[in-house]
Amino acid sequence: MPYVKIEVTRDGVTKEQKQALIHGVTKLLYEVLNKDPQLTHVTIDEIDTDNWGVGGEQVTEIRKKTKQ
Amino acid sequence: MPYVKIEVTRDGVTKEQKQALIHGVTKLLYEVLNKDPQLTHVTIDEIDTDNWGVGGEQVTEIRKKTKQ
Amino acid sequence: MPYVKIEVTRDGVTKEQKQALIHGVTKLLYEVLNKDPQLTHVTIDEIDTDNWGVGGEQVTEIRKKTKQ
Amino acid sequence: MPYVKIEVTRDGVTKEQKQALIHGVTKLLYEVLNKDPQLTHVTIDEIDTDNWGVGGEQVTEIRKKTKQ
Amino acid sequence: MPYVKIEVTRDGVTKEQKQALIHGVTKLLYEVLNKDPQLTHVTIDEIDTDNWGVGGEQVTEIRKKTKQ
Amino acid sequence: MPYVKIEVTRDGVTKEQKQALIHGVTKLLYEVLNKDPQLTHVTIDEIDTDNWGVGGEQVTEIRKKTKQ
Repeated sequence: MPYVKIEVTRDGVTKEQKQALIHGVTKLLYEVLNKDPQLTHVTIDEIDTDNWGVGGEQVTEIRKKTKQ
Repeated sequence: MPYVKIEVTRDGVTKEQKQALIHGVTKLLYEVLNKDPQLTHVTIDEIDTDNWGVGGEQVTEIRKKTKQ
Repeated sequence: MPYVKIEVTRDGVTKEQKQALIHGVTKLLYEVLNKDPQLTHVTIDEIDTDNWGVGGEQVTEIRKKTKQ
Repeated sequence: MPYVKIEVTRDGVTKEQKQALIHGVTKLLYEVLNKDPQLTHVTIDEIDTDNWGVGGEQVTEIRKKTKQ
Repeated sequence: MPYVKIEVTRDGVTKEQKQALIHGVTKLLYEVLNKDPQLTHVTIDEIDTDNWGVGGEQVTEIRKKTKQ
Repeated sequence: MPYVKIEVTRDGVTKEQKQALIHGVTKLLYEVLNKDPQLTHVTIDEIDTDNWGVGGEQVTEIRKKTKQ
Protein backbone atom coordinates (compact mmCIF):
# COMPACT_ATOMS: atom_id res chain seq x y z
CA MET A 1 0.00 0.00 0.00
CA PRO A 2 2.66 2.50 -0.76
CA TYR A 3 1.96 6.21 -0.92
CA VAL A 4 4.63 8.45 -2.42
CA LYS A 5 4.68 12.26 -2.50
CA ILE A 6 7.12 13.96 -4.86
CA GLU A 7 7.77 17.64 -4.21
CA VAL A 8 9.47 19.61 -6.97
CA THR A 9 9.73 23.27 -7.86
CA ARG A 10 7.03 24.57 -10.21
CA ASP A 11 9.01 24.82 -13.44
CA GLY A 12 6.68 23.82 -16.22
CA VAL A 13 6.81 20.07 -15.57
CA THR A 14 4.87 18.58 -18.50
CA LYS A 15 2.05 16.04 -18.32
CA GLU A 16 4.37 13.50 -19.95
CA GLN A 17 7.10 14.08 -17.35
CA LYS A 18 4.55 13.66 -14.56
CA GLN A 19 3.43 10.38 -16.13
CA ALA A 20 7.06 9.25 -16.33
CA LEU A 21 7.56 9.99 -12.61
CA ILE A 22 4.36 8.16 -11.62
CA HIS A 23 5.20 5.17 -13.80
CA GLY A 24 8.83 5.05 -12.66
CA VAL A 25 8.13 5.21 -8.94
CA THR A 26 5.38 2.58 -9.18
CA LYS A 27 7.71 0.25 -11.13
CA LEU A 28 10.49 0.80 -8.57
CA LEU A 29 8.23 -0.18 -5.67
CA TYR A 30 7.19 -3.30 -7.54
CA GLU A 31 10.78 -4.27 -8.33
CA VAL A 32 12.29 -3.54 -4.91
CA LEU A 33 9.44 -4.47 -2.54
CA ASN A 34 7.08 -6.45 -4.79
CA LYS A 35 4.27 -3.95 -4.14
CA ASP A 36 1.11 -4.40 -6.21
CA PRO A 37 0.99 -1.37 -8.56
CA GLN A 38 -2.79 -1.12 -8.10
CA LEU A 39 -2.18 -0.21 -4.44
CA THR A 40 0.58 2.32 -5.12
CA HIS A 41 -0.52 5.96 -5.09
CA VAL A 42 1.84 8.71 -6.23
CA THR A 43 1.17 12.45 -5.93
CA ILE A 44 3.25 15.31 -7.30
CA ASP A 45 3.33 18.64 -5.49
CA GLU A 46 4.70 21.56 -7.53
CA ILE A 47 5.99 24.33 -5.28
CA ASP A 48 6.64 27.94 -6.33
CA THR A 49 10.32 28.90 -6.22
CA ASP A 50 9.45 31.72 -3.78
CA ASN A 51 8.12 29.04 -1.40
CA TRP A 52 11.18 26.75 -1.40
CA GLY A 53 14.42 27.60 0.34
CA VAL A 54 17.83 25.96 0.60
CA GLY A 55 20.74 27.35 2.55
CA GLY A 56 18.41 29.95 4.03
CA GLU A 57 17.59 31.49 0.65
CA GLN A 58 14.65 31.29 -1.76
CA VAL A 59 15.23 29.19 -4.88
CA THR A 60 14.06 32.21 -6.91
CA GLU A 61 17.06 34.17 -5.65
CA ILE A 62 19.53 31.27 -5.84
CA ARG A 63 18.70 30.87 -9.53
CA LYS A 64 19.18 34.56 -10.28
CA LYS A 65 22.70 34.39 -8.87
CA THR A 66 23.54 31.15 -10.65
CA LYS A 67 22.64 32.63 -14.02
CA GLN A 68 24.93 35.60 -13.63
CA MET B 1 -3.90 18.09 19.36
CA PRO B 2 -4.83 16.23 16.23
CA TYR B 3 -3.82 17.43 12.80
CA VAL B 4 -5.50 15.82 9.79
CA LYS B 5 -4.63 16.31 6.12
CA ILE B 6 -7.15 15.14 3.53
CA GLU B 7 -5.83 14.79 -0.02
CA VAL B 8 -8.41 14.48 -2.79
CA THR B 9 -8.39 15.05 -6.52
CA ARG B 10 -9.33 18.58 -7.63
CA ASP B 11 -12.86 17.96 -8.91
CA GLY B 12 -14.90 20.97 -7.98
CA VAL B 13 -15.29 20.11 -4.29
CA THR B 14 -17.71 22.76 -2.99
CA LYS B 15 -17.28 24.95 0.08
CA GLU B 16 -20.15 23.05 1.72
CA GLN B 17 -18.51 19.68 1.06
CA LYS B 18 -15.25 20.97 2.54
CA GLN B 19 -17.13 22.14 5.61
CA ALA B 20 -18.77 18.70 5.90
CA LEU B 21 -15.35 17.01 5.77
CA ILE B 22 -13.89 19.36 8.40
CA HIS B 23 -16.90 18.96 10.68
CA GLY B 24 -17.05 15.18 10.23
CA VAL B 25 -13.37 14.52 10.94
CA THR B 26 -13.38 16.79 13.98
CA LYS B 27 -16.49 15.02 15.36
CA LEU B 28 -14.90 11.61 14.73
CA LEU B 29 -11.77 12.52 16.68
CA TYR B 30 -13.94 13.73 19.56
CA GLU B 31 -16.05 10.57 19.59
CA VAL B 32 -13.23 8.05 19.20
CA LEU B 33 -10.38 9.71 21.12
CA ASN B 34 -12.18 12.43 23.11
CA LYS B 35 -10.06 15.13 21.45
CA ASP B 36 -11.04 18.74 22.16
CA PRO B 37 -12.40 20.10 18.84
CA GLN B 38 -10.70 23.46 19.48
CA LEU B 39 -7.34 21.68 19.17
CA THR B 40 -8.20 19.71 16.03
CA HIS B 41 -6.91 21.20 12.78
CA VAL B 42 -8.01 19.80 9.42
CA THR B 43 -6.58 20.81 6.04
CA ILE B 44 -7.79 19.77 2.60
CA ASP B 45 -5.33 19.48 -0.28
CA GLU B 46 -6.89 19.35 -3.75
CA ILE B 47 -4.56 17.71 -6.26
CA ASP B 48 -4.82 17.96 -10.06
CA THR B 49 -5.66 14.64 -11.73
CA ASP B 50 -2.44 14.94 -13.80
CA ASN B 51 -0.52 14.97 -10.50
CA TRP B 52 -2.06 11.83 -8.97
CA GLY B 53 -1.33 8.32 -10.13
CA VAL B 54 -2.59 4.86 -9.21
CA GLY B 55 -1.37 1.65 -10.81
CA GLY B 56 1.37 3.62 -12.53
CA GLU B 57 -1.07 5.79 -14.47
CA GLN B 58 -2.38 9.36 -14.11
CA VAL B 59 -5.94 9.67 -12.80
CA THR B 60 -6.66 11.87 -15.84
CA GLU B 61 -5.97 8.90 -18.12
CA ILE B 62 -7.69 6.32 -15.88
CA ARG B 63 -10.89 8.37 -16.03
CA LYS B 64 -10.78 8.68 -19.82
CA LYS B 65 -10.68 4.89 -20.12
CA THR B 66 -13.40 4.34 -17.53
CA LYS B 67 -15.80 6.61 -19.39
CA GLN B 68 -15.44 4.74 -22.66
CA MET C 1 -8.41 8.40 -4.63
CA PRO C 2 -8.34 10.08 -1.26
CA TYR C 3 -5.36 9.82 1.03
CA VAL C 4 -5.79 10.93 4.64
CA LYS C 5 -3.10 11.29 7.30
CA ILE C 6 -4.21 11.60 10.93
CA GLU C 7 -1.59 12.88 13.35
CA VAL C 8 -2.30 12.41 17.07
CA THR C 9 -0.19 12.35 20.19
CA ARG C 10 1.11 8.90 21.21
CA ASP C 11 -1.20 8.16 24.13
CA GLY C 12 -1.96 4.46 23.98
CA VAL C 13 -4.44 4.65 21.11
CA THR C 14 -5.83 1.09 20.89
CA LYS C 15 -6.12 -1.06 17.79
CA GLU C 16 -9.91 -0.74 18.03
CA GLN C 17 -9.74 3.06 18.17
CA LYS C 18 -7.46 3.09 15.13
CA GLN C 19 -9.93 0.89 13.28
CA ALA C 20 -12.76 3.27 14.26
CA LEU C 21 -10.80 6.23 12.87
CA ILE C 22 -10.02 4.42 9.61
CA HIS C 23 -13.61 3.25 9.19
CA GLY C 24 -15.06 6.65 10.09
CA VAL C 25 -12.90 8.69 7.74
CA THR C 26 -13.49 6.29 4.85
CA LYS C 27 -17.26 6.42 5.42
CA LEU C 28 -17.17 10.23 5.59
CA LEU C 29 -15.38 10.48 2.23
CA TYR C 30 -17.96 8.13 0.70
CA GLU C 31 -20.88 10.11 2.11
CA VAL C 32 -19.59 13.61 1.34
CA LEU C 33 -17.71 13.07 -1.95
CA ASN C 34 -18.93 9.64 -3.08
CA LYS C 35 -15.36 8.29 -3.01
CA ASP C 36 -14.97 4.54 -3.57
CA PRO C 37 -13.77 3.14 -0.20
CA GLN C 38 -11.40 0.75 -1.99
CA LEU C 39 -9.43 3.77 -3.20
CA THR C 40 -9.34 5.56 0.17
CA HIS C 41 -6.13 5.14 2.14
CA VAL C 42 -5.87 6.34 5.74
CA THR C 43 -2.67 6.42 7.82
CA ILE C 44 -2.32 7.27 11.49
CA ASP C 45 0.87 8.88 12.78
CA GLU C 46 1.35 8.76 16.56
CA ILE C 47 3.70 11.51 17.74
CA ASP C 48 5.49 11.62 21.11
CA THR C 49 4.31 14.45 23.36
CA ASP C 50 7.91 15.77 23.49
CA ASN C 51 7.75 16.16 19.69
CA TRP C 52 4.49 18.16 19.51
CA GLY C 53 4.19 21.78 20.54
CA VAL C 54 1.34 24.25 20.82
CA GLY C 55 1.71 27.84 21.95
CA GLY C 56 5.48 27.43 21.83
CA GLU C 57 5.49 24.66 24.44
CA GLN C 58 5.81 20.86 24.39
CA VAL C 59 2.57 18.95 24.98
CA THR C 60 4.44 17.01 27.69
CA GLU C 61 4.87 20.25 29.65
CA ILE C 62 1.40 21.61 28.90
CA ARG C 63 -0.13 18.45 30.38
CA LYS C 64 1.96 18.65 33.55
CA LYS C 65 0.62 22.15 34.20
CA THR C 66 -2.97 21.22 33.40
CA LYS C 67 -2.91 18.40 35.93
CA GLN C 68 -1.73 20.62 38.76
CA MET D 1 19.55 17.12 6.50
CA PRO D 2 16.52 18.85 7.87
CA TYR D 3 13.38 19.31 5.84
CA VAL D 4 10.76 21.72 7.17
CA LYS D 5 7.25 22.31 5.83
CA ILE D 6 5.40 25.41 7.00
CA GLU D 7 1.65 25.44 6.39
CA VAL D 8 -0.13 28.78 6.71
CA THR D 9 -3.41 30.19 5.45
CA ARG D 10 -3.25 31.93 2.07
CA ASP D 11 -3.42 35.56 3.18
CA GLY D 12 -1.15 37.49 0.88
CA VAL D 13 2.12 36.43 2.48
CA THR D 14 4.74 38.53 0.69
CA LYS D 15 7.95 37.32 -0.93
CA GLU D 16 9.90 39.13 1.81
CA GLN D 17 7.93 37.39 4.58
CA LYS D 18 8.56 34.02 2.93
CA GLN D 19 12.27 34.82 2.79
CA ALA D 20 12.19 35.77 6.49
CA LEU D 21 10.56 32.43 7.37
CA ILE D 22 13.07 30.44 5.30
CA HIS D 23 16.02 32.34 6.74
CA GLY D 24 14.72 32.14 10.32
CA VAL D 25 14.01 28.40 10.30
CA THR D 26 17.37 27.61 8.70
CA LYS D 27 19.17 29.74 11.29
CA LEU D 28 17.24 28.07 14.12
CA LEU D 29 18.25 24.58 12.96
CA TYR D 30 21.87 25.70 12.78
CA GLU D 31 21.79 27.23 16.27
CA VAL D 32 19.89 24.42 18.02
CA LEU D 33 21.15 21.33 16.20
CA ASN D 34 24.22 22.62 14.35
CA LYS D 35 22.68 21.63 10.99
CA ASP D 36 24.56 22.76 7.88
CA PRO D 37 22.32 25.39 6.23
CA GLN D 38 23.19 24.02 2.78
CA LEU D 39 21.39 20.80 3.71
CA THR D 40 18.29 22.48 5.19
CA HIS D 41 15.29 22.66 2.88
CA VAL D 42 12.22 24.71 3.83
CA THR D 43 8.93 24.75 1.91
CA ILE D 44 5.91 26.97 2.52
CA ASP D 45 2.42 25.69 1.73
CA GLU D 46 -0.28 28.38 1.54
CA ILE D 47 -3.74 26.91 2.15
CA ASP D 48 -7.06 28.56 1.25
CA THR D 49 -9.15 29.50 4.29
CA ASP D 50 -11.99 27.30 2.94
CA ASN D 51 -9.59 24.36 3.12
CA TRP D 52 -8.47 24.80 6.74
CA GLY D 53 -10.65 24.05 9.73
CA VAL D 54 -10.29 24.45 13.48
CA GLY D 55 -12.94 23.49 16.01
CA GLY D 56 -14.90 21.83 13.21
CA GLU D 57 -15.33 25.07 11.28
CA GLN D 58 -13.69 26.62 8.21
CA VAL D 59 -11.28 29.47 8.92
CA THR D 60 -13.27 31.54 6.38
CA GLU D 61 -16.32 31.32 8.65
CA ILE D 62 -14.39 31.76 11.90
CA ARG D 63 -12.98 35.04 10.60
CA LYS D 64 -16.39 36.36 9.56
CA LYS D 65 -17.65 35.85 13.10
CA THR D 66 -14.58 37.37 14.69
CA LYS D 67 -14.95 40.55 12.67
CA GLN D 68 -18.53 41.13 13.76
CA MET E 1 15.45 20.58 -5.12
CA PRO E 2 13.19 17.58 -5.04
CA TYR E 3 11.98 16.10 -1.78
CA VAL E 4 10.33 12.67 -1.91
CA LYS E 5 8.58 10.84 0.92
CA ILE E 6 7.87 7.13 0.47
CA GLU E 7 5.34 5.62 2.87
CA VAL E 8 5.21 1.83 3.09
CA THR E 9 3.93 -0.66 5.64
CA ARG E 10 6.46 -1.75 8.26
CA ASP E 11 7.30 -5.23 6.97
CA GLY E 12 10.96 -5.77 7.58
CA VAL E 13 12.21 -3.62 4.71
CA THR E 14 15.98 -4.24 4.68
CA LYS E 15 18.73 -1.61 4.62
CA GLU E 16 19.59 -2.75 1.08
CA GLN E 17 15.99 -2.34 -0.11
CA LYS E 18 15.89 1.16 1.39
CA GLN E 19 19.11 2.00 -0.43
CA ALA E 20 17.61 0.67 -3.70
CA LEU E 21 14.53 2.90 -3.24
CA ILE E 22 16.64 5.99 -2.48
CA HIS E 23 18.97 5.33 -5.41
CA GLY E 24 16.11 4.56 -7.81
CA VAL E 25 14.03 7.63 -7.01
CA THR E 26 17.05 9.92 -7.21
CA LYS E 27 18.01 8.45 -10.60
CA LEU E 28 14.44 8.81 -11.86
CA LEU E 29 14.34 12.51 -10.95
CA TYR E 30 17.64 13.02 -12.74
CA GLU E 31 16.48 11.21 -15.88
CA VAL E 32 12.99 12.76 -16.10
CA LEU E 33 13.58 16.29 -14.80
CA ASN E 34 17.38 16.62 -14.89
CA LYS E 35 17.47 17.27 -11.13
CA ASP E 36 20.91 17.40 -9.52
CA PRO E 37 21.12 14.27 -7.29
CA GLN E 38 22.94 16.27 -4.60
CA LEU E 39 19.76 18.33 -4.11
CA THR E 40 17.38 15.35 -4.04
CA HIS E 41 16.30 14.21 -0.58
CA VAL E 42 14.35 10.98 -0.11
CA THR E 43 12.81 9.80 3.16
CA ILE E 44 11.14 6.47 3.88
CA ASP E 45 8.35 6.26 6.46
CA GLU E 46 7.51 2.74 7.64
CA ILE E 47 3.97 2.55 9.03
CA ASP E 48 2.57 -0.21 11.26
CA THR E 49 -0.14 -2.28 9.58
CA ASP E 50 -2.54 -1.33 12.42
CA ASN E 51 -2.04 2.32 11.41
CA TRP E 52 -2.80 1.95 7.68
CA GLY E 53 -6.25 1.35 6.30
CA VAL E 54 -7.68 0.73 2.84
CA GLY E 55 -11.35 0.19 2.09
CA GLY E 56 -12.15 1.19 5.68
CA GLU E 57 -10.17 -1.68 7.17
CA GLN E 58 -6.74 -2.04 8.81
CA VAL E 59 -4.07 -3.67 6.66
CA THR E 60 -3.46 -6.08 9.59
CA GLU E 61 -7.00 -7.42 9.18
CA ILE E 62 -6.98 -7.38 5.37
CA ARG E 63 -3.89 -9.60 5.39
CA LYS E 64 -5.43 -12.10 7.83
CA LYS E 65 -8.37 -12.60 5.47
CA THR E 66 -6.18 -12.84 2.38
CA LYS E 67 -4.14 -15.63 3.92
CA GLN E 68 -7.15 -17.77 4.71
CA MET F 1 -3.33 28.63 12.19
CA PRO F 2 0.13 27.58 11.20
CA TYR F 3 1.20 23.97 11.25
CA VAL F 4 4.92 23.22 10.95
CA LYS F 5 6.59 19.83 10.54
CA ILE F 6 10.33 19.59 11.16
CA GLU F 7 12.03 16.46 9.83
CA VAL F 8 15.51 15.71 11.13
CA THR F 9 17.68 12.61 11.33
CA ARG F 10 17.32 10.59 14.55
CA ASP F 11 20.53 11.57 16.32
CA GLY F 12 19.74 11.83 19.98
CA VAL F 13 17.96 15.17 19.80
CA THR F 14 17.32 16.06 23.45
CA LYS F 15 14.03 17.16 25.00
CA GLU F 16 15.55 20.62 25.53
CA GLN F 17 16.59 20.92 21.88
CA LYS F 18 13.07 19.92 20.81
CA GLN F 19 11.65 22.58 23.11
CA ALA F 20 14.04 25.14 21.59
CA LEU F 21 12.88 24.24 18.06
CA ILE F 22 9.19 24.46 19.03
CA HIS F 23 9.68 27.76 20.82
CA GLY F 24 11.81 29.24 18.05
CA VAL F 25 9.48 28.36 15.19
CA THR F 26 6.43 29.61 17.08
CA LYS F 27 8.20 32.90 17.86
CA LEU F 28 9.27 33.27 14.21
CA LEU F 29 5.69 32.87 12.97
CA TYR F 30 4.54 35.48 15.47
CA GLU F 31 7.25 37.94 14.46
CA VAL F 32 7.00 37.51 10.68
CA LEU F 33 3.28 36.87 10.18
CA ASN F 34 1.78 37.95 13.52
CA LYS F 35 0.35 34.46 14.09
CA ASP F 36 -1.23 33.80 17.48
CA PRO F 37 1.11 31.30 19.21
CA GLN F 38 -1.89 29.44 20.67
CA LEU F 39 -2.85 28.45 17.12
CA THR F 40 0.64 27.39 16.02
CA HIS F 41 1.30 23.65 16.10
CA VAL F 42 4.82 22.28 15.58
CA THR F 43 5.71 18.60 15.22
CA ILE F 44 9.16 17.04 15.02
CA ASP F 45 9.70 13.85 13.04
CA GLU F 46 12.97 12.02 13.77
CA ILE F 47 14.00 9.81 10.86
CA ASP F 48 16.52 6.94 11.00
CA THR F 49 19.66 7.60 8.96
CA ASP F 50 18.95 4.40 6.97
CA ASN F 51 15.64 5.98 5.92
CA TRP F 52 17.02 9.31 4.64
CA GLY F 53 18.96 9.70 1.44
CA VAL F 54 20.76 12.56 -0.29
CA GLY F 55 22.56 12.29 -3.59
CA GLY F 56 21.14 8.80 -4.00
CA GLU F 57 22.83 7.46 -0.88
CA GLN F 58 21.73 6.70 2.69
CA VAL F 59 22.84 9.21 5.33
CA THR F 60 24.23 6.24 7.30
CA GLU F 61 26.70 5.58 4.49
CA ILE F 62 27.45 9.24 3.78
CA ARG F 63 28.50 9.69 7.39
CA LYS F 64 30.78 6.64 7.35
CA LYS F 65 32.68 8.12 4.40
CA THR F 66 32.88 11.59 5.91
CA LYS F 67 34.47 10.26 9.06
CA GLN F 68 37.25 8.45 7.23
